[in-house]
Amino acid sequence: MSRLLQEIMEQPSVLEGLLSSEYPVIQEVAAAIRERGVRAVLIAARGTSDNAATYAKYIWGAFNGLPVMLAAPSLYTFYQRPPRLHDTLVVGISQSGMSPDVVAVVEDGRAQGMLTLAITNDTQSRLARTAEYVLSCRAGEERSVAATKSYTAELMTIALLSVALAEDGHRLEETRRLPEAVAKTLALEKVIAQRAERYRFMTSCAVVGRGFNYATAFEVALKVKELTYVSAQPYSSADFMHGPVAVVGRDYPVIVIAPSGRVYDDLSALVAELKRREAELIIVSDRPDLAQQAQFPLVLPAALPEWLSPITAVIPGQLLGYHLALAKGLDPEQPRGLRKVTETR
Amino acid sequence: MSRLLQEIMEQPSVLEGLLSSEYPVIQEVAAAIRERGVRAVLIAARGTSDNAATYAKYIWGAFNGLPVMLAAPSLYTFYQRPPRLHDTLVVGISQSGMSPDVVAVVEDGRAQGMLTLAITNDTQSRLARTAEYVLSCRAGEERSVAATKSYTAELMTIALLSVALAEDGHRLEETRRLPEAVAKTLALEKVIAQRAERYRFMTSCAVVGRGFNYATAFEVALKVKELTYVSAQPYSSADFMHGPVAVVGRDYPVIVIAPSGRVYDDLSALVAELKRREAELIIVSDRPDLAQQAQFPLVLPAALPEWLSPITAVIPGQLLGYHLALAKGLDPEQPRGLRKVTETR
Repeated sequence: MSRLLQEIMEQPSVLEGLLSSEYPVIQEVAAAIRERGVRAVLIAARGTSDNAATYAKYIWGAFNGLPVMLAAPSLYTFYQRPPRLHDTLVVGISQSGMSPDVVAVVEDGRAQGMLTLAITNDTQSRLARTAEYVLSCRAGEERSVAATKSYTAELMTIALLSVALAEDGHRLEETRRLPEAVAKTLALEKVIAQRAERYRFMTSCAVVGRGFNYATAFEVALKVKELTYVSAQPYSSADFMHGPVAVVGRDYPVIVIAPSGRVYDDLSALVAELKRREAELIIVSDRPDLAQQAQFPLVLPAALPEWLSPITAVIPGQLLGYHLALAKGLDPEQPRGLRKVTETR
Repeated sequence: MSRLLQEIMEQPSVLEGLLSSEYPVIQEVAAAIRERGVRAVLIAARGTSDNAATYAKYIWGAFNGLPVMLAAPSLYTFYQRPPRLHDTLVVGISQSGMSPDVVAVVEDGRAQGMLTLAITNDTQSRLARTAEYVLSCRAGEERSVAATKSYTAELMTIALLSVALAEDGHRLEETRRLPEAVAKTLALEKVIAQRAERYRFMTSCAVVGRGFNYATAFEVALKVKELTYVSAQPYSSADFMHGPVAVVGRDYPVIVIAPSGRVYDDLSALVAELKRREAELIIVSDRPDLAQQAQFPLVLPAALPEWLSPITAVIPGQLLGYHLALAKGLDPEQPRGLRKVTETR
């Protein structure tokens, strides 16, 4: 089995490990956040971790009432004009903990006297040494350039911090269903391996999600881009309607992320519009009635609460990226001109 | 002359009008922001106005020390779980002032006792009636689906509010150079009309900017998508290196927005990398030495201070969208399936 596929397949055990070992540390961080009177969150991240930051924006906003802003690193690294913070938790998310721009934002947060937190897969990294608190993703070594298990581990960490902050026993119980739900979702590998070839000559596509799964649209698009060089563009269903939908004509491929929940009807209405435009649809949903409207339905096996659905809904995208790379004759371990650790200012 | 081209050409006079008439009202808003002890800004916007919001994030962050966050409207409209705000200015930006999701965020800000501001081209709109303060873009009626003059008017309003907040006479003087600089930039229309045909069969491209011109990359990509159905993807140069650069091989078209300033070297290094990959380059810069490295150089005539350069750097993108639509035999007034006012939740 290839290393990337192996890392994808490790996700249930990574999540299991996080649940069983990291929650006490997460509770300590939650206690510090409460004690320090945090009223807002600033997150710095790049690439896959930036998509995890988007998930945090929605989850911490919805369940913890925290306004979350994503940092503009160039204000720190190029302009040397960081905004003034008050009662703000500054979070850096990075698998490697190496990107200088992410470190710069956390360093500045510390200099401004803010509470700082690193969420990283390397607790010895510069990012980890810079932040006051560190949460480990416990994903084990991730060697493939395309991040997979570190992404779902970051999401799980974010979800558990939300639970710990709210001291919400009900949602904590819900998170325990994740390892099994992810394992069941991985069974989609078979059908994806069989049908990926259909997209052999696809050169661009759109990926649409909304709300808690806005992040999923971004992460699926990033996997597809990195692994297959297809120009995959992520959107919220609302942003999509404000202009970009114009690119969709007959046969234009659109991946729709539409698990059950509050935004389901909005995505379902989008599917109707895309069918009118005769688009080629790939639909990821636990609702077979919706998924079956696609040329390529990807039915999520287990219905999860919407807030956790991003942790399963991304899996078909990871698998599609992998198998489409193979169908296109590309090496999924060696995307053109990418390295595992990207250091940007 | 087509209506869209006419609206593009009106931009110098719109900016002139804004400068001569709106500044006193902008100063009143600045006074209110100071009096109310505003420490952060939350902005809701969609489409073109969302790109103006990104400009505000950088400008108000860099020059006014204000952390700026972009709203997640679905937290209001679908989840009914808006974050709790403190000492926050809530801004809605919308040409029409009609989108229900933008109105919902401003309504909630008012309900939470925050200072609220509408930046809109229609001072009678629902958004304008919802906010405590209103700034008019004074762009005149904009009938084309693709927003152009309302975008640069929104940017100018944002720039002037930054100046008024900082009571910065030097930067106020700098803004007075804009109408002429925009007028000079419009002279690029001739070469763009001549050469747009080269991109007749382009189906996708990337658009890269950074810092103050991160917004420009997004707005240029949106114009190209709306008008030509080319799958144009915007990135910061840093985000681009964290994965998406993999899509760039020989002949892949990349539009680089690289005016002089603090991030110039970063973009210039990107150009070198893209040339190694044998990409097809369109470079927008006031530096002829850099621009001439492109197959299609677009030399900005007037060097502006970097913080104002987004108001001229977007113009070649507007013109390229228009002329490429014509080269592709498309009607720039009637993008497929778009209406002027898009109402999303």
